[in-house]
Amino acid sequence: MNIAVLGTGTVGQTLSARLLVLGHEVMMGTRNVQEAKIRTTKDVYGNPGIGDWLKNNPRVNLVTFAEAIAFGQIIINATQGGKSVEALRNGNPGDLDGKIIIDIGNPLDFSRGMPPVLIPELCNTTSLGEEIQKAFPQSYVVKTLNTMWCGLMVNPAMIAGGDHHNFLSGNNPEAKLEVKKLLNQFGWKDENLLDLGDISSARGTEMILPVWLRIMTAKQSGVFNFKVIG
Amino acid sequence: MNIAVLGTGTVGQTLSARLLVLGHEVMMGTRNVQEAKIRTTKDVYGNPGIGDWLKNNPRVNLVTFAEAIAFGQIIINATQGGKSVEALRNGNPGDLDGKIIIDIGNPLDFSRGMPPVLIPELCNTTSLGEEIQKAFPQSYVVKTLNTMWCGLMVNPAMIAGGDHHNFLSGNNPEAKLEVKKLLNQFGWKDENLLDLGDISSARGTEMILPVWLRIMTAKQSGVFNFKVIG
Repeated sequence: MNIAVLGTGTVGQTLSARLLVLGHEVMMGTRNVQEAKIRTTKDVYGNPGIGDWLKNNPRVNLVTFAEAIAFGQIIINATQGGKSVEALRNGNPGDLDGKIIIDIGNPLDFSRGMPPVLIPELCNTTSLGEEIQKAFPQSYVVKTLNTMWCGLMVNPAMIAGGDHHNFLSGNNPEAKLEVKKLLNQFGWKDENLLDLGDISSARGTEMILPVWLRIMTAKQSGVFNFKVIG
Repeated sequence: MNIAVLGTGTVGQTLSARLLVLGHEVMMGTRNVQEAKIRTTKDVYGNPGIGDWLKNNPRVNLVTFAEAIAFGQIIINATQGGKSVEALRNGNPGDLDGKIIIDIGNPLDFSRGMPPVLIPELCNTTSLGEEIQKAFPQSYVVKTLNTMWCGLMVNPAMIAGGDHHNFLSGNNPEAKLEVKKLLNQFGWKDENLLDLGDISSARGTEMILPVWLRIMTAKQSGVFNFKVIG
């Protein structure tokens, strides 16, 4: 399948690499291709910049947001939450219509120091997932995978044989089924995929981030996930 | 130990009954004792009003907030999050000084329909736990137990032999140790108690509520909890 991954951070990198291994055609979209190709600045967590990463992943095709959106049958949003709607707006008119947008973004606000809070305008009474769905009503937004470290997103079996939970939110049942098939390819078993209902339930999963960050600090590791027991 | 339970909802009822069984002296505090004693209105989830409950639990001593606060060596806040600081302010000057306040409250806002959101002024960039600590700087606030159904709070072994997680947030390590001892009495094992750090980490645990409510809806049951895997 042709898949567009928007965003060049570690989440976008990890998803793109895994999708290529699985045999998908991948285009990674970014705002400014030339700038990204030479970017070596590490992110806030010390992960390599996209420029360094691309040298080791030459098969990844880095293109503009618009080119990636035009190419993808499925669009994965792995951009910064505060800039996701803007990134998706780079698509040519109609290029997102009828397509599934898998939204992995989190509306984190790093402007007030660490750990980040959520962007107040994008949480609690709304969510990034909902705002994307509102901005692109002809698309099928499915929020998923945003509650864990990216290594686990694409390889859940890394801990506890994959027996922990990933949530899904979205208005369209068929779109959620399609996304589940892709998650199955990553190694997610159906019994570990918990459908929380329509896209407004993304409020809940995005609001997991603050406790996720505190647990990461307490455990000094991001290699963990939640399992719903009972 | 003398324990004050503030709040007459199902959480306060469940905690009070369990503490009595464990041999503690319990006073349940409320705003208006006479009104509460005859209250039969069910809550938003259909649980019995405190008036009906007291008939079946005659050993519980229902008193004013002030009387309960004066009595308790430990104060448990199980009032509605939006009214918790106000409830605690009913104490006589100095009556909370040097005491542990176990804060189980959640700042839920039911005014916008179901499921509730969090009260915007009490989430994300602050939390109920932090606001209580600010209002009573001579007390030791420990946020805990607020991320699960009250039946599990006092009887974690009800599911998976108790092997799921309860979080603690608070500025004072000794106070958290004291609270852990009480949690041990409820059946919590130390390895299932996850200390997330200072009271600001209560932002994270309070923000679990929205996804908790969605999972409850998806599972049609509140008898579940989170386990941190990995």
